[in-house]
Amino acid sequence: MIYLDNAATTYPKPEIVYKELDRANRNAFNTGRGSYKPAREASIIKENVRKKILELNNINKGNVVFTSSATSSLNDIIFGINLKKGDCVYVSPFEHNSIIRPLEELKKRIQITIKVLPFNNKTWKLDIEKTKDLFILNNPAAIFISQVSNVTGYLLPYNEVFELGKTYNSINILDASQGYGIVKINDYSNINYIVFAGHKSLYASFGVAGYIKLKDDIIKPNIFGGTGSDTMNPNMPCSFPEGYEAGSPNIVAISSLNVSIDWLNQVKVFEHESNLTMYLIEQLSSIKGVNVYAPDDLSKIFGVVSFSVDKYTSEDVGKILDEEFDICVRTGFHCAPLIHEFIGSLEYGGTVRVGLNYFNNKDDIDTLINALNSL
Amino acid sequence: MIYLDNAATTYPKPEIVYKELDRANRNAFNTGRGSYKPAREASIIKENVRKKILELNNINKGNVVFTSSATSSLNDIIFGINLKKGDCVYVSPFEHNSIIRPLEELKKRIQITIKVLPFNNKTWKLDIEKTKDLFILNNPAAIFISQVSNVTGYLLPYNEVFELGKTYNSINILDASQGYGIVKINDYSNINYIVFAGHKSLYASFGVAGYIKLKDDIIKPNIFGGTGSDTMNPNMPCSFPEGYEAGSPNIVAISSLNVSIDWLNQVKVFEHESNLTMYLIEQLSSIKGVNVYAPDDLSKIFGVVSFSVDKYTSEDVGKILDEEFDICVRTGFHCAPLIHEFIGSLEYGGTVRVGLNYFNNKDDIDTLINALNSL
Repeated sequence: MIYLDNAATTYPKPEIVYKELDRANRNAFNTGRGSYKPAREASIIKENVRKKILELNNINKGNVVFTSSATSSLNDIIFGINLKKGDCVYVSPFEHNSIIRPLEELKKRIQITIKVLPFNNKTWKLDIEKTKDLFILNNPAAIFISQVSNVTGYLLPYNEVFELGKTYNSINILDASQGYGIVKINDYSNINYIVFAGHKSLYASFGVAGYIKLKDDIIKPNIFGGTGSDTMNPNMPCSFPEGYEAGSPNIVAISSLNVSIDWLNQVKVFEHESNLTMYLIEQLSSIKGVNVYAPDDLSKIFGVVSFSVDKYTSEDVGKILDEEFDICVRTGFHCAPLIHEFIGSLEYGGTVRVGLNYFNNKDDIDTLINALNSL
Repeated sequence: MIYLDNAATTYPKPEIVYKELDRANRNAFNTGRGSYKPAREASIIKENVRKKILELNNINKGNVVFTSSATSSLNDIIFGINLKKGDCVYVSPFEHNSIIRPLEELKKRIQITIKVLPFNNKTWKLDIEKTKDLFILNNPAAIFISQVSNVTGYLLPYNEVFELGKTYNSINILDASQGYGIVKINDYSNINYIVFAGHKSLYASFGVAGYIKLKDDIIKPNIFGGTGSDTMNPNMPCSFPEGYEAGSPNIVAISSLNVSIDWLNQVKVFEHESNLTMYLIEQLSSIKGVNVYAPDDLSKIFGVVSFSVDKYTSEDVGKILDEEFDICVRTGFHCAPLIHEFIGSLEYGGTVRVGLNYFNNKDDIDTLINALNSL
């Protein structure tokens, strides 16, 4: 089997992650809720992982909140930041339903406006002048941008938009689910929240994700329950992280992050995946009838490549690759509703998506290319 | 180490659960989002576990929704069922902050009324006549009751209250986090939702919990995001379970449920824990200065026993048991804010709580009793 669906979840994980998961499962106590030794030890691991999450991107100061998924993180942020009736929020056309759907819900509840940032669908560049005009007409209350598109691997120019947004005091949210820990965030000075997903670019297990709160804007809790402290208070305590992590923490998944981050610090994932990405695009582009969805500047694509094949639906391509070649790709719309009209993949029922990881190699790509050549 | 904090999380799990977790981690794909073989196989496991959850309590028909924790399940239910301004909801005095805090939040948002059901604090019996009077004055829109109290192990008379509530069409929610799969729910005809927690009575891992929806009342989604389907729809699809499970499912944790339920079907957990509970209460009651928090009818206590020790705070007892005897118990308020005034444990700073499981034996209890005798 050749696994090329790493944008859904990275597979395999490093062997030390599996070993740590086994150890952690066999020593899984409820952290922060017991006064005995193994519970205290588990709490220490949890607090260490918060530090490691920050260090991974050289972030000096920030509150790390663990959630069960990037979707939960984005819900907690969208419903927690103080958006009010009449506010205008901006999203890029590359955003995922974990941003679009909670915003649409908020729109129904309190009548916010959701606007799509103007990207040129030939060059994929942001039209900064148009953005300035839009922001003047409708001041941004919040801006949501992905670091790496989950459909196209596009590295979005988030800092440009966030910097402009900051002149209006907008709350800037970077969805780094696809890249945190691998794709560096060089300038985080304009970011309020960074969202990460443990089981994707961080090579840890399902069950842990979170966000980093970088500024002192106010966020209300979005999930209410036991915090193992301040029990008699009927309200959630407003302190970090307790007030934002109701329920038993998933110490097993957090422990897997503990070792996967160490591993990420030792290997060159970015370089390896960058090289493979370029090789993949080059090879795909050489096949007649294959349409690669990428801008001219290929250096802006990382880790994920989408394409379609003339005369085939994307679903059919995926089925053939699975059934005849034992190659796992993902096909369809990838939970990103706005991007397919933008790139022109609607007529194929979405794209065929290849998601790469550190364990893929050129042979995997050659096998895929041979398979596609035989169509 | 003697582990007696099984009400926080069961430890250890059966060996087959650890083995399955290792297998599942090494084969963790994103279910329902890929068209390739291993993703399809993972989806089959997920759907099988839904069936097993129902079968475990001989439930013929119900929708099983997976969430990441019982706290999430309760938030999803409380914010999802259609509570309106002016509605009156009832809770027992035994309820956890995963019920109390979301209800208090809802009270602030839409002005619901929260009332505590009248239990007699000597006999711990529900005053059914007073309940009837309360219901006449303030019709119940929803009723929240635990199956097993997480502080005292008390088996609550939920069916009496739910039956009465049904005459007012109340939405009845049973929090079975502490007992699902072990303590049978003999009559579920008056229940709308049953909440379960994978890592507690179900002997599975952290990261999976859920609820069973038994009736056709309407529940709105409470978490919004990708569902792997219907991508172009900016709203959550209203179908079960997709519309209520946004984000990547934790297939690893779900897989652990797959084997832990098989195990539960083979061993006599209820009988074993019942016997141990009786032995524990008996032994504790024989120690001078130990106050056991239990009603006269001891058959109503299961798996969890709370006590305090004269002249000690509960925290101090826990510390001594940990440091001098390597015994893990939990002390304090256990995230249940109403029960301590009811049972009279406020002056001790809450209770010392012993939570038993299938792997405990009489020797564990004897060691605890010897330690307490030496105080």
